[in-house]
Amino acid sequence: MDVVRWEPGARERLQRAALELFAARGFEQTTAAEIAQSVGLTERTFFRHFADKREVLFYGTHLLVEAFLKGVEAAAPDATPLEVVGSALRSVAAFFPDDRRPYSRTRQAVINQNPALQERELRKMAELTRVIHGALLARGLTDPTAALAAELARTVFGIAFGEWIGDGEQRSLDVIQADLLRRLRDLTG
Amino acid sequence: MDVVRWEPGARERLQRAALELFAARGFEQTTAAEIAQSVGLTERTFFRHFADKREVLFYGTHLLVEAFLKGVEAAAPDATPLEVVGSALRSVAAFFPDDRRPYSRTRQAVINQNPALQERELRKMAELTRVIHGALLARGLTDPTAALAAELARTVFGIAFGEWIGDGEQRSLDVIQADLLRRLRDLTG
Repeated sequence: MDVVRWEPGARERLQRAALELFAARGFEQTTAAEIAQSVGLTERTFFRHFADKREVLFYGTHLLVEAFLKGVEAAAPDATPLEVVGSALRSVAAFFPDDRRPYSRTRQAVINQNPALQERELRKMAELTRVIHGALLARGLTDPTAALAAELARTVFGIAFGEWIGDGEQRSLDVIQADLLRRLRDLTG
Repeated sequence: MDVVRWEPGARERLQRAALELFAARGFEQTTAAEIAQSVGLTERTFFRHFADKREVLFYGTHLLVEAFLKGVEAAAPDATPLEVVGSALRSVAAFFPDDRRPYSRTRQAVINQNPALQERELRKMAELTRVIHGALLARGLTDPTAALAAELARTVFGIAFGEWIGDGEQRSLDVIQADLLRRLRDLTG
């Protein structure tokens, strides 16, 4: 076991500093050492928290997945597939309160500038869909309905998230997602 | 202008040979030179047709995109968004006749074994969705409905394609997609 000195709040400070530097200078032009130095920490401390600088932007992925899964679990046993999707989306909306919107906007701007980061984001969304699909199968749904429902959850979340971080958007993610679910019903009804 | 000697059917022969070698030996373990030699052609001829060996597996992407766009255009001017999606899916089904199924199965098995190829496939699907989205906007649909409809087209195609190449599956892609559209309506209705 390696005994490491605990830096209180180091992860959050590094994450915030990294995003500021990525946005100001570009992702490629920013090193892990510069991120650490900008908040008075060492490169070694940086790598204690993140495997690489890309990881700073994707650290929250497992928490997003957990939020989706909690929402699937929270749905009533006799919920329809679309009600389960709705429950998952409400759980995820709670994970993105409005005070997180500026951070999410900046993060997306950084990702949009870098093809490798865009690929990682695509992989993240594919993995998210796979996990939701698994959770729906575990609830007793069968394919292809479970696969369709998982894709609907991903689609509504993806489009709603894009609207949520759009310029001037004021609505909460929860409100946007509910609106999209209604439009989806209109579209297919 | 570079004058090149035309090898009749060279592209198809290279494509078929490449897939056989990728499936037998693995994608990483197969070189462009080996692919060319296996059908009596030179490495130089290979690179006249394909930028790299990965390109062999993704050469048809622009044709798939065209099939989707033709289907969007073929929809009646007063078609509902879901009818436009249905028209696009029927056009794509014609692009995958049943005699192409063995090729598609082998191609997918090769892709499933290689993370870099999986990423390329993810990018292809994201690009496909982006193009369909653009075509729907050009038809006069507005967001977020256009974005939702484009994602539905991608979702139904993606799940149906996975079923179509599944072990023992006998139904045509057209029949599977029509079945999924019905299930989508049931799910959201």
